[in-house]
Amino acid sequence: MTGLLEGPVLVIGTGLIGASVGMSLRRAGVDVLLSDIDPEGLAIAVEGGAGRRLEPGDRPRIVLVAVPPRHAAAVLADASAQHPDATLTDVTSVKGRVLADALALDADPTRLVGGHPMAGREVTGAAGARRDLLDDRLWVLTPLPTTGLEHIRQAHRLVSTCGAYPVEMSPDEHDAAVALVSHAPQVISSTLAAQLVDADDDHVRIAGQGLRDMTRIAGSGVDMWIDILDVNGAPVADVLDRIAAELARTAQALRERSGDDVVGQVLAAGRVGRERIPGKHGAAPSAFREVWVMLADRPGELGRLFGTVGEAQVSIEDVSIEHVLGRPSGLVSLSVRPEAADALLDHLRGAGYDVRA
Amino acid sequence: MTGLLEGPVLVIGTGLIGASVGMSLRRAGVDVLLSDIDPEGLAIAVEGGAGRRLEPGDRPRIVLVAVPPRHAAAVLADASAQHPDATLTDVTSVKGRVLADALALDADPTRLVGGHPMAGREVTGAAGARRDLLDDRLWVLTPLPTTGLEHIRQAHRLVSTCGAYPVEMSPDEHDAAVALVSHAPQVISSTLAAQLVDADDDHVRIAGQGLRDMTRIAGSGVDMWIDILDVNGAPVADVLDRIAAELARTAQALRERSGDDVVGQVLAAGRVGRERIPGKHGAAPSAFREVWVMLADRPGELGRLFGTVGEAQVSIEDVSIEHVLGRPSGLVSLSVRPEAADALLDHLRGAGYDVRA
Repeated sequence: MTGLLEGPVLVIGTGLIGASVGMSLRRAGVDVLLSDIDPEGLAIAVEGGAGRRLEPGDRPRIVLVAVPPRHAAAVLADASAQHPDATLTDVTSVKGRVLADALALDADPTRLVGGHPMAGREVTGAAGARRDLLDDRLWVLTPLPTTGLEHIRQAHRLVSTCGAYPVEMSPDEHDAAVALVSHAPQVISSTLAAQLVDADDDHVRIAGQGLRDMTRIAGSGVDMWIDILDVNGAPVADVLDRIAAELARTAQALRERSGDDVVGQVLAAGRVGRERIPGKHGAAPSAFREVWVMLADRPGELGRLFGTVGEAQVSIEDVSIEHVLGRPSGLVSLSVRPEAADALLDHLRGAGYDVRA
Repeated sequence: MTGLLEGPVLVIGTGLIGASVGMSLRRAGVDVLLSDIDPEGLAIAVEGGAGRRLEPGDRPRIVLVAVPPRHAAAVLADASAQHPDATLTDVTSVKGRVLADALALDADPTRLVGGHPMAGREVTGAAGARRDLLDDRLWVLTPLPTTGLEHIRQAHRLVSTCGAYPVEMSPDEHDAAVALVSHAPQVISSTLAAQLVDADDDHVRIAGQGLRDMTRIAGSGVDMWIDILDVNGAPVADVLDRIAAELARTAQALRERSGDDVVGQVLAAGRVGRERIPGKHGAAPSAFREVWVMLADRPGELGRLFGTVGEAQVSIEDVSIEHVLGRPSGLVSLSVRPEAADALLDHLRGAGYDVRA
């Protein structure tokens, strides 16, 4: 469904995603028009090469709405009226509600294609924009049953031109998917971390890396998540109810010590489910081999390890540290392609490191 | 309560923990006796410098039982009969049940002090033992109300001589604490990951780093966890029931869109709870500053970054990668002491990296 994208593309909202989309389209030579209610953000985006300011008389063929979720429906409806031929899409992380609201506000149902690029949220604002932010990312597209084929095709071309991969699903399917893989995990992480608020100091002190991993996203911004969870309430509630029921069932089995079956099944299913999550490159986790390095108890040891690994000229796919409370360093895991593991092991051993594969 | 530890110390079970305890005691000049039903493991431990073989006529002053959890009570009871004056301790990760079972088997209640060193489980067996494995670790001690003060003191000396920090709590308190910070999180991670088993491929593909973190420990060994959860069933069930009830309450609030209060409270409490988990060195997470490096889309880029960071001669406290599906690299976070951040930023910028603090 891809092909040459003909502009102009109007990007409304020049935050991180909007400005990055503009930059990646400009990279491909597409004419990009920009608008933003914030003149400063707009100036940064123009200066950063995301496109030119929208002028009266411009006739965009595609409008991409990249404004905060609570404004997306109104801006889509407004764009539908202003640009009566353009394909209309957005980048909001929840799809069902925003599209329904836009239709209720008279957005044209034949031109509307929801979108959600799976790009990071670590940095915000036009100043953080990059022309390669969307390269090789997945970008979910959620056409409506009423959307015309040519507009779906345009949305696919937009995504591909940005260097991303389009994945098509219905709005409801998208919302159930992000509820499962992102929104419900956020609530679970926060709920688990909330149990620590009144815990005894000594109890929290004996926490290990597992709890640290499980509660990392509990440190996320509260306001952003209140918005997302409010808009995707029902699908998230479905996942939470399923998980709450499973936890209660496991608790009962543990109390009755009829445990082994229920508990063993949950643990075994968890391993299978975990294996399904793609690693980097979209490769299965098993495609890499882990090399463990035990770091000595000296300050700066991790920096020295970095230097030694750098010398090895081996492509490192991933790195993580098994934290150890009260120790300056710990156990470092380096993931490499299986064929590179031996070279890395040899190099590190040669440099005097305690290494295991 | 610490002081000079007088041996001999008998270590029964020369796996990772037992052999490491032996090596750290030998480092301090303590006479260590070793026994194991597996002659090969015993030979490795002796050869590795963990101590000498137990001989008839040896009179240990302390017996440390480091056998698998299901055998610990019987071995403690047997040691109590064999060595009628010795302090008796163990290293099992659940305390209430094993101590109750040992007492039921006639272990001497005046000499029994449960123990649980908070050391890693990443490597097992005597071959993985290290004399510094226990350095700076927390080591929970759980005396009974009947335990004599001299035996509690001996256990403290043992822990300190191994380079670890003793933390005293009751057996039930210990079991509730590990249920909260370790065992229940394992069940929750597995339960969440289990939801992915039947999920659509496209839905799993759009997972991000949050889900990956939340399900990492779901990849742990099933058999080990069945044992632990079985032995610590009731305390784990208590935590699971609390969390299940919280998740159900949040789900209801989301459905009723009475959401903001309940949802906002959970998210806010989660942030507070998360802050309580100690970082490395036992320091608060805020004691470090994060430097973000955007890696270019070239193979081997992480290895090159390692080299450049190594040159900077800055002490790196932590490193993590924000994974991006389908990209060879991503966004790398380096944690450093606040006063070192600028030097690292300058060095990386000088080497041409896209860096943010």
